[in-house]
Amino acid sequence: MTAIAVPAPDPDFQCPACYRIVSIMKFCSQCGAPVALRIPEGDTLPRFVCGRCHTIHYQNPRMVVGCIVEWEDSILLCRRAIEPRYGLWTVPAGYMENGETASQGALRETLEEANARVEIGPLYALYNIPHISQVYILFRARLLDLDFHAGAETIEARLYAENEMPWDQIAFATVRNTLTHYYSDRRRGEFKFHMGTIEQIKK
Amino acid sequence: MTAIAVPAPDPDFQCPACYRIVSIMKFCSQCGAPVALRIPEGDTLPRFVCGRCHTIHYQNPRMVVGCIVEWEDSILLCRRAIEPRYGLWTVPAGYMENGETASQGALRETLEEANARVEIGPLYALYNIPHISQVYILFRARLLDLDFHAGAETIEARLYAENEMPWDQIAFATVRNTLTHYYSDRRRGEFKFHMGTIEQIKK
Repeated sequence: MTAIAVPAPDPDFQCPACYRIVSIMKFCSQCGAPVALRIPEGDTLPRFVCGRCHTIHYQNPRMVVGCIVEWEDSILLCRRAIEPRYGLWTVPAGYMENGETASQGALRETLEEANARVEIGPLYALYNIPHISQVYILFRARLLDLDFHAGAETIEARLYAENEMPWDQIAFATVRNTLTHYYSDRRRGEFKFHMGTIEQIKK
Repeated sequence: MTAIAVPAPDPDFQCPACYRIVSIMKFCSQCGAPVALRIPEGDTLPRFVCGRCHTIHYQNPRMVVGCIVEWEDSILLCRRAIEPRYGLWTVPAGYMENGETASQGALRETLEEANARVEIGPLYALYNIPHISQVYILFRARLLDLDFHAGAETIEARLYAENEMPWDQIAFATVRNTLTHYYSDRRRGEFKFHMGTIEQIKK
């Protein structure tokens, strides 16, 4: 195994070369001994490997699951009460949890962030964000009633018609792209699945 | 915070009630102190939380990315040289890595498992496997040449025509379902995206 210096002490470290965000481990979660970043035998990528029990700790991308919630001609947006992008608007979405399906996760996030009950529709968008190791999975969904209100991580939840959309106050590029495709599809009268990649702008 | 007894000492523990597989942490990867399974303030699910530095260690589902590799009327299958399902056949697929897109991961896995060069086509299937916290993301792909051969985790890589398919030797339900849809779509002359959930059969 080839040893590589552990790059930084912060739990989330952004590489100055590739701009990727890496979750730094210092200790083995199985035995508590220090770990080192090494390329295991037969592998091609560096992993955190325990110096004592030799457990290899793999890290993998996470899924963010959510909904484009429709009510007549409007879309439900949530104003973020948490970082990152505090105060900006997004669709209800969040990290998929163990033990659930993508659509169950999207339903749960919509309930948690906007106390909104929805019926999940077709998969609408899949966006890769490789530099932060995330994949967004967004469904179209039908709002079932108007009895929604902001959850704990939301300042305000409200319906927006297209001509009211706060385009310069959208929290994430994934959401802005998805909504742009959504309105374009709606004008064309046909919704189709969209897949894409959000690249970080190199400084 | 509500303390919950850590269920078992094995790194991967299968719950006897819900059959879900949980990755057990014993020590904090940031400071090395013991962790306990607790529901953090404002959360709804138990997490491994450090008793000393209070880091909350979230665990999330992983993505398996791969390809249905087409050459004329045949599909490329790989016979597994690793557990689980040693000796059974699957499509080239594996865990998505940090820093890549789903289609880059599918391309990489196809190269690693079958040394096969492909052109990635449209997204074909998304399968949830909630009890093992996995999401399969499978693309159709076009094999570019016949110069493929088994990689390190593969016993044998070969092209199968529909009438040769080893249906009783397919490694995973996701792959069997995907291939069943694939041949049904091909007979109908139209390929469409498939989404589904593989439920574990309760013993």
